Amino acid sequence: MRAAKLIGVGVGPGDPELLTIKAMRALGEADVVVHFAKAGNASHSRAIVERHLRANVTELPLYYPVTTELPACSDGYRDAIRDFYDGAAAAIAAQLDAGRVVAVICEGDPLFYGSYMHLHARLAGRYRAEIVAGVTGMSGCWSAAGMPIAQGDDVFTVLPATLPEGELTRRLAEADAAVVMKVGRHLPKLRRALETSGRLPRAIYVERGTMAEEIMIPLSAKSDDEAPYFAVVLVPGWDERPEAKR
Amino acid sequence: MRAAKLIGVGVGPGDPELLTIKAMRALGEADVVVHFAKAGNASHSRAIVERHLRANVTELPLYYPVTTELPACSDGYRDAIRDFYDGAAAAIAAQLDAGRVVAVICEGDPLFYGSYMHLHARLAGRYRAEIVAGVTGMSGCWSAAGMPIAQGDDVFTVLPATLPEGELTRRLAEADAAVVMKVGRHLPKLRRALETSGRLPRAIYVERGTMAEEIMIPLSAKSDDEAPYFAVVLVPGWDERPEAKR
Repeated sequence: MRAAKLIGVGVGPGDPELLTIKAMRALGEADVVVHFAKAGNASHSRAIVERHLRANVTELPLYYPVTTELPACSDGYRDAIRDFYDGAAAAIAAQLDAGRVVAVICEGDPLFYGSYMHLHARLAGRYRAEIVAGVTGMSGCWSAAGMPIAQGDDVFTVLPATLPEGELTRRLAEADAAVVMKVGRHLPKLRRALETSGRLPRAIYVERGTMAEEIMIPLSAKSDDEAPYFAVVLVPGWDERPEAKR
Repeated sequence: MRAAKLIGVGVGPGDPELLTIKAMRALGEADVVVHFAKAGNASHSRAIVERHLRANVTELPLYYPVTTELPACSDGYRDAIRDFYDGAAAAIAAQLDAGRVVAVICEGDPLFYGSYMHLHARLAGRYRAEIVAGVTGMSGCWSAAGMPIAQGDDVFTVLPATLPEGELTRRLAEADAAVVMKVGRHLPKLRRALETSGRLPRAIYVERGTMAEEIMIPLSAKSDDEAPYFAVVLVPGWDERPEAKR
């Protein structure tokens, strides 16, 4: 019997071709494949790797608790999400205790804003654990846009759109290049922060980067403020003559 | 004859298994493979993809001008590096004009602090150009460390160690998570900035992440201040109970 092992597998931003050789090998080795999805939805990460799943593999889908009716900062939300990860870790531990190799597939990179981290924190101390780095969603977006993001001695920052408007404005003004995540209902505020910080002319709005349904337009050309939670805004820190800056 | 095309191909942080399917396909399609190296050195990116190079492929190595004797901010340095990229773009344009598919292989991700950006800026307006996103060097490092880097509503920042000490300290204190690049001779200053900002206990020092010669230790345990230019320091923004923070 092979030794039990937990593998956090980054599967990239959406284009199935942005999967790594190492991720394919991990899927070939796994007895159990774990994937996250919203309740009632198919898993995005599963769709990305579907062609590489072994015919007899055991699948363990994890459905996020439906907590949209609870504010993200509430005790109720925190309890629900903690119970969810505790239960998921226990289910995975049972597979590992049975000697199996368990691959948790993750969109993007497992340790960069990923749900896998919550399982890693609960299990990596007790079991052999391995990470397969992945292409991040943001790399997929700026690559699809053909938009150099940061160079030389640039300061590059990733910001959640959930920040208060003043802080968002200040941090955008202080970074040479930025990516803003979790745009959703924060788009009107983000648009004002980009305007005030002088970054609006460079900002690119992206939905579903690298996927068939990709939407990518200059934010200044987007006429409404409708955006899904997972939309991102790229603010490239690119000069006309890059080498003049260094 | 196929249409000429420029492809910026990310080959990942060093582990040849962190190459994507898309990168392999680009290498299979390329008539010409371009790689950067320091004069007198073998190309790292070429070593990563060596097993995927076609037997009859044309290779076009680009050697960075030796400019270590010039300060990076000097006119002489700027002129040398501009001439180098102008000449490289002209050599690639000649291949594209002859109808060839040209792949420029890049460590990490092509549009994230990569040399390819200087070629892209000179050529993408005139020729069909495509980017293959890659796993970044920093993803390779935190994955090899098994160290969750950023989560939830964290602000994540990439900083060059070349920044003045006061600015480095302030930016480290203001970020939940950070990666500091270009460490080299700036390590004593960086160590002081991490100490002052309270981030030293979390800082991880990494050389050659994901490669056979990888070095990875807590910075507080590193007894000297010797570091190569390409060493990085990771400052994970990770709490003991991550879901309590969101």
